[in-house]
Amino acid sequence: MEFPEFQIDWERERRTGVPEAIFCHGKTPAQIDAIAAAAGDRRLLLTRLSPTLHAALAPETRALLDHDPLSATALLGGGVPLAASGIGIVAAGTSDLAVAREAARTLAFAGYDAEIFADVGVAGLWRLMARLDEFRRCRVLIAVAGMEGALFSVLAGLVEAPVIAVPTSVGYGVAAGGTAALHAALASCAPGVVVVNIDNGFGAAAAALKMLRAYSRAM
Amino acid sequence: MEFPEFQIDWERERRTGVPEAIFCHGKTPAQIDAIAAAAGDRRLLLTRLSPTLHAALAPETRALLDHDPLSATALLGGGVPLAASGIGIVAAGTSDLAVAREAARTLAFAGYDAEIFADVGVAGLWRLMARLDEFRRCRVLIAVAGMEGALFSVLAGLVEAPVIAVPTSVGYGVAAGGTAALHAALASCAPGVVVVNIDNGFGAAAAALKMLRAYSRAM
Amino acid sequence: MEFPEFQIDWERERRTGVPEAIFCHGKTPAQIDAIAAAAGDRRLLLTRLSPTLHAALAPETRALLDHDPLSATALLGGGVPLAASGIGIVAAGTSDLAVAREAARTLAFAGYDAEIFADVGVAGLWRLMARLDEFRRCRVLIAVAGMEGALFSVLAGLVEAPVIAVPTSVGYGVAAGGTAALHAALASCAPGVVVVNIDNGFGAAAAALKMLRAYSRAM
Amino acid sequence: MEFPEFQIDWERERRTGVPEAIFCHGKTPAQIDAIAAAAGDRRLLLTRLSPTLHAALAPETRALLDHDPLSATALLGGGVPLAASGIGIVAAGTSDLAVAREAARTLAFAGYDAEIFADVGVAGLWRLMARLDEFRRCRVLIAVAGMEGALFSVLAGLVEAPVIAVPTSVGYGVAAGGTAALHAALASCAPGVVVVNIDNGFGAAAAALKMLRAYSRAM
Amino acid sequence: MEFPEFQIDWERERRTGVPEAIFCHGKTPAQIDAIAAAAGDRRLLLTRLSPTLHAALAPETRALLDHDPLSATALLGGGVPLAASGIGIVAAGTSDLAVAREAARTLAFAGYDAEIFADVGVAGLWRLMARLDEFRRCRVLIAVAGMEGALFSVLAGLVEAPVIAVPTSVGYGVAAGGTAALHAALASCAPGVVVVNIDNGFGAAAAALKMLRAYSRAM
Amino acid sequence: MEFPEFQIDWERERRTGVPEAIFCHGKTPAQIDAIAAAAGDRRLLLTRLSPTLHAALAPETRALLDHDPLSATALLGGGVPLAASGIGIVAAGTSDLAVAREAARTLAFAGYDAEIFADVGVAGLWRLMARLDEFRRCRVLIAVAGMEGALFSVLAGLVEAPVIAVPTSVGYGVAAGGTAALHAALASCAPGVVVVNIDNGFGAAAAALKMLRAYSRAM
Amino acid sequence: MEFPEFQIDWERERRTGVPEAIFCHGKTPAQIDAIAAAAGDRRLLLTRLSPTLHAALAPETRALLDHDPLSATALLGGGVPLAASGIGIVAAGTSDLAVAREAARTLAFAGYDAEIFADVGVAGLWRLMARLDEFRRCRVLIAVAGMEGALFSVLAGLVEAPVIAVPTSVGYGVAAGGTAALHAALASCAPGVVVVNIDNGFGAAAAALKMLRAYSRAM
Amino acid sequence: MEFPEFQIDWERERRTGVPEAIFCHGKTPAQIDAIAAAAGDRRLLLTRLSPTLHAALAPETRALLDHDPLSATALLGGGVPLAASGIGIVAAGTSDLAVAREAARTLAFAGYDAEIFADVGVAGLWRLMARLDEFRRCRVLIAVAGMEGALFSVLAGLVEAPVIAVPTSVGYGVAAGGTAALHAALASCAPGVVVVNIDNGFGAAAAALKMLRAYSRAM
Repeated sequence: MEFPEFQIDWERERRTGVPEAIFCHGKTPAQIDAIAAAAGDRRLLLTRLSPTLHAALAPETRALLDHDPLSATALLGGGVPLAASGIGIVAAGTSDLAVAREAARTLAFAGYDAEIFADVGVAGLWRLMARLDEFRRCRVLIAVAGMEGALFSVLAGLVEAPVIAVPTSVGYGVAAGGTAALHAALASCAPGVVVVNIDNGFGAAAAALKMLRAYSRAM
Repeated sequence: MEFPEFQIDWERERRTGVPEAIFCHGKTPAQIDAIAAAAGDRRLLLTRLSPTLHAALAPETRALLDHDPLSATALLGGGVPLAASGIGIVAAGTSDLAVAREAARTLAFAGYDAEIFADVGVAGLWRLMARLDEFRRCRVLIAVAGMEGALFSVLAGLVEAPVIAVPTSVGYGVAAGGTAALHAALASCAPGVVVVNIDNGFGAAAAALKMLRAYSRAM
Repeated sequence: MEFPEFQIDWERERRTGVPEAIFCHGKTPAQIDAIAAAAGDRRLLLTRLSPTLHAALAPETRALLDHDPLSATALLGGGVPLAASGIGIVAAGTSDLAVAREAARTLAFAGYDAEIFADVGVAGLWRLMARLDEFRRCRVLIAVAGMEGALFSVLAGLVEAPVIAVPTSVGYGVAAGGTAALHAALASCAPGVVVVNIDNGFGAAAAALKMLRAYSRAM
Repeated sequence: MEFPEFQIDWERERRTGVPEAIFCHGKTPAQIDAIAAAAGDRRLLLTRLSPTLHAALAPETRALLDHDPLSATALLGGGVPLAASGIGIVAAGTSDLAVAREAARTLAFAGYDAEIFADVGVAGLWRLMARLDEFRRCRVLIAVAGMEGALFSVLAGLVEAPVIAVPTSVGYGVAAGGTAALHAALASCAPGVVVVNIDNGFGAAAAALKMLRAYSRAM
Repeated sequence: MEFPEFQIDWERERRTGVPEAIFCHGKTPAQIDAIAAAAGDRRLLLTRLSPTLHAALAPETRALLDHDPLSATALLGGGVPLAASGIGIVAAGTSDLAVAREAARTLAFAGYDAEIFADVGVAGLWRLMARLDEFRRCRVLIAVAGMEGALFSVLAGLVEAPVIAVPTSVGYGVAAGGTAALHAALASCAPGVVVVNIDNGFGAAAAALKMLRAYSRAM
Repeated sequence: MEFPEFQIDWERERRTGVPEAIFCHGKTPAQIDAIAAAAGDRRLLLTRLSPTLHAALAPETRALLDHDPLSATALLGGGVPLAASGIGIVAAGTSDLAVAREAARTLAFAGYDAEIFADVGVAGLWRLMARLDEFRRCRVLIAVAGMEGALFSVLAGLVEAPVIAVPTSVGYGVAAGGTAALHAALASCAPGVVVVNIDNGFGAAAAALKMLRAYSRAM
Repeated sequence: MEFPEFQIDWERERRTGVPEAIFCHGKTPAQIDAIAAAAGDRRLLLTRLSPTLHAALAPETRALLDHDPLSATALLGGGVPLAASGIGIVAAGTSDLAVAREAARTLAFAGYDAEIFADVGVAGLWRLMARLDEFRRCRVLIAVAGMEGALFSVLAGLVEAPVIAVPTSVGYGVAAGGTAALHAALASCAPGVVVVNIDNGFGAAAAALKMLRAYSRAM
Repeated sequence: MEFPEFQIDWERERRTGVPEAIFCHGKTPAQIDAIAAAAGDRRLLLTRLSPTLHAALAPETRALLDHDPLSATALLGGGVPLAASGIGIVAAGTSDLAVAREAARTLAFAGYDAEIFADVGVAGLWRLMARLDEFRRCRVLIAVAGMEGALFSVLAGLVEAPVIAVPTSVGYGVAAGGTAALHAALASCAPGVVVVNIDNGFGAAAAALKMLRAYSRAM
């Protein structure tokens, strides 16, 4: 029995506005090596490539990758110059930064810059209020929070831009795994919050990219 | 077979600082009639006595009760003069008022007044900030909120008093039944929030009464 | 005890781009009557106003409302002329139309037109493919589906516009309540899907309005 | 105390059409060694024999086994020539291949060949449509997908053959553990999808074998 | 705003081997009336048409329908002569008969007869063993059970035919809603059980029809 | 199509020590009438026969039944003289009495008397301690409690007899449906508690009957 | 700050019929060493003492213990002669033997012998039927099963003795963690099954001991 | 891209009565090192600093910390003299001591002493009753229990002081993760129990501190 293993969707960006990315968790090192080899000189984003998995790749694959351990992302094929995007990424706590950074790295892969605002939790509301003018200047906000996820509602009640909520798995007890933050985002009393899966910084960036592209289209 | 049915714990208040109350949901009208008759001229609080269940009671029972349909509470044996308590009850939305009122009625049964602050949700943060000085003057705050329950964290990050969170079953989808608000209260990033069961305005008032009593004890 | 009950957030639209709306489920008819009276000649959207609850309102309130039973929405203060929005609403089945219509009514309240595409489930993929060109012309797509929610992934893999997924509670067994469709939306293998709460047609429209407003802002 | 430990059901295949297999996860190496010894020269399939567990077996056991690390299966007693089966195995992503391969190995143990179609997710629908004619020629389809499991509905809406859905635990957040894909399979809007437990490639193959056998019986 | 509402998939049977059916729960009477009118003289199966919903249809619609209250199914366009199918339907308890009958009515709509075996629960194993020869003669078995669903495993361990398990929502406590039976079916220790959604008698029949059709195809 | 509907297991008592009983919830009145008719002059216990369902039976069925509305049980074929059993039934609250009574009626059907101890919750521990000597004289204790189910552990830590815990669905919020009490029973820190399904007074009595019978057997 | 750490309940056996046991999981090696030292020459049972935790104990503690790695139990203070008990322990699969053995070791600690019947799953019903006479001679049956737990219902429908069900965490997918088997035990259609927590072989033995003791008491 | 990472809320204690603490789980060693460096000579509490994480910190950070491995807490900046607080901490079992100690260490950081009562589970009620007078002298009780959490209700029914329940993740099966104990606390039949998240000893201490501060304020 022979097993053909993958087909990269190189046309995805043209078709949907989001570049193809490889979700590495659950793949074997050999599968990732094969994918990297198949890419040739095309650019590719790899997500959920943990330091352990990265270390298990073939040396020739690792040589091609720009790997960031905190966000577990890697870029194949080099970077591109970054354009201003008007996208802001707001993280509630230090522990949420890995996910915030996955979003930022995805935007950078697509050629956009973004600003990260860190440690803006609602338990110290003044930290959030102090930066409100900056938030209000953004065209899209990605909000990243675990635990009870109160940040999503507070932020969305204060700004005009769409708020993409990324619940994170930061927390313990009833917050373990991120479901409490996810439900807080979905049940927000502030209308207009949209939500992606737990820890899905990549998905939030992909949605923001679709919005940017829609902004620039003639109707 | 004969079935003895109930024993009222008349000593509870002396022992624990919280008066005995009858949880009516799930009891038959005949059982509630019998309990009211057994009370004689002693005072008793009845909770979860819905308008429908109230209407099914014997006329002589109903004649003895001061019933409030919104909070589904009834007082047997008359009211007492109310003393100032320093307890504030903050409700996030209009739909949370039934639960807030159950707490207020419980306090009133025990002889304490409380102030209710209504419609103080975080989606319009200015409504909360406008009353912050009043909140800060309270010695205990009971916070009542459904949906995503962001009120608990925002409030607890701003005041010195203990915050007793009462999640409510107001909401739909992932918020249906109140679990999302409950988890938000338990996972709050603002330390010092304590929580009671969903829709449990009575329990929040009971806890506040225990705190008041502890305040006045010599150590 | 007196209970102040509500404060309408008339500034919400200016602040966040989404007009204030009243979620009627869980409110008493008297509370809704009072809110309608307080509105005076300002415009207001009422959601989750079921036919039963609508019938229990005071006649003078009902006289002021444009009520749509299928979507359980009512407009107070009259309609406005509709501008083209480029928003498309795609419903997987006939049973999802109530939610789709809540979204459309919300957009209409805010002055925007939208096109509804009905019965576009993936079990008959040709129905979806036949309308693909129309979908691709939209600037924002609201996708409404219950059961297994496969529509979200299929659609998002084919179009460039942001896809706002609204899972519905249509279904039974493991799909009862809408959690299966919700999880399908959040776990979509097609990047860039953003999600709102189950049956939350209003929230999807609010998010779409925020995007439209962001399109028209200078950066 | 003595503990008799196992009795192999050698008659299962004759009685039910599915050969006896040993589920190794949760068994100690000594137990597996004893089972292998008891088999003598009879053929036996071992499933969930992870590389770690395989490495802990006695050398004489390992010498008897044809072990495949990706699918964690091992064959004892040698292979048999493979007959064409008309069974197709469709895997949504590279990460689903381990489960797909467990199904293929089970069929091979029973003497049947099958074709694996890899990386046929619905986010790139063209990959699926390109192979539709091949799918339509199959008499039974085993569909293997994690995440949101949209593949099951799309496939079942396009082909005549029974579709056996195998949800996998590939995914994170709400998809972690495979429940989202499982519910999508069960709630499919495309009638006629049947489902086995999460990651149960063996069970899907067993069901397909029962169908093949039923095809060949006189009624 | 105009809302086109439905498109019937008249080609489904030719494409997938399963006739189009209308899931009535969640549809308004007016929507069902419109669908019935659109069918003209084509045959159509309606499922989940409860007696209450049936009674709310227009008289001219009701005149066209052959409605069975226990299974909540209706046939539009008349019956067809029934061919022997070799399909057996085994129901664990009397309360499971509504679901068993939905399966039987679906088969009858498609032109096949089936035998129902009632009250064959495992608590009285002799009732099952007494009919074992009949079960073994079937080419496909649909097993319908609620509560703990032990029937699925016992049956599948005894027969050669594929067993399609239909868990039902019969039960209370941990069995309420049917999840316990569903999980028992999926986790069965007897290989080769395949499963459909809770109470989904229609889906089980659809799967059986696909198998029958596959039996009769040349490879 | 004809549907044979039921087979009563008249031999169950001889085989298992527990008489056959009919679980009426989910059955139609016509099905129950037929079962009663089939019983002839044999004795039969009917459980979960709610007042509404009882009222819908044929008058001739009702004439044969000794129906108790609180426990929703009915005896067909008359009572028998009761022997002392040494079984005690302890109910935590008034609302738990319906379930306690289902157990007592089941025992009475089998010819055994039992004593019910009502309103013995742990919030007023003195009520429990006051009756401890009576509890200690019992040979089997059935403990019935909802809410947090603390009764099970406290009781089992004090007595020598086996404690059969019956969690009830009495409660709200996290206790709604009885899962909190069920988990408390299963996780009890007092060893030797055994548990039946939520609200399953019948099952607890059946287990107690099996124990009584085992007591009287020679080994 | 000083932390007093434990008080052993040496009177438990006299009071409740079940000897005190130490649940080791979650305790530090130092805590277990201290408990063993405090026991002096009294006998003590230690449960959930995994090989890893056992290896971390002080050598002088280990010297005192009779440790069984499969069941993770240890006896302190030596064994006692075993009396016949009439208790049978039935395990569905080889993987369930660890739990079955925890029950047997607990009985042995208390001075009773028991017979273990292994690999008696319902998928091969003949294995169960072949030993039915032996099962019927037992006075108490402890049934140990994971996955779908069908064994509990089948067994309880065939024997007169009380059946204590011990669901195990053996399984994957929906059966992972043992909830599927637990629910099957609680929802059993065979009356008289009583249940203990998942993997709680100790608790099942404790309940059986209570029954044995009750057998021998005068009433 | 640069990532600013944290802002310590040094004003929290003045504003809310609870000192700022750093939740270390989920932070990288480098992040914790940076936080410790930023603190300068200010005092700081670190929680969830496991021995493994502690060992990974920079030596200069470790030199500054007073680390307690059992409770996984560390104090930066030295201790302060302890005042009597009237707070009692009651732990149900030895395994709950880690959480009890987190509470005690938090109080000590804030300058208060507390008494720990260990191994006071309800299975041996005499251990609890023997210390009742001591419990009754406390002004606030923190109760720490896992498994079924019956301690919360028993204790709250006996004392006047507020009871802060801390459910722990001690347990297995249905008690794994602490949800059973959490639900028991929330559903307690003894009014006035307030609850914090699972294993949240820090939060319980923070709430107790807020109460102490409220005691000493003029109204």
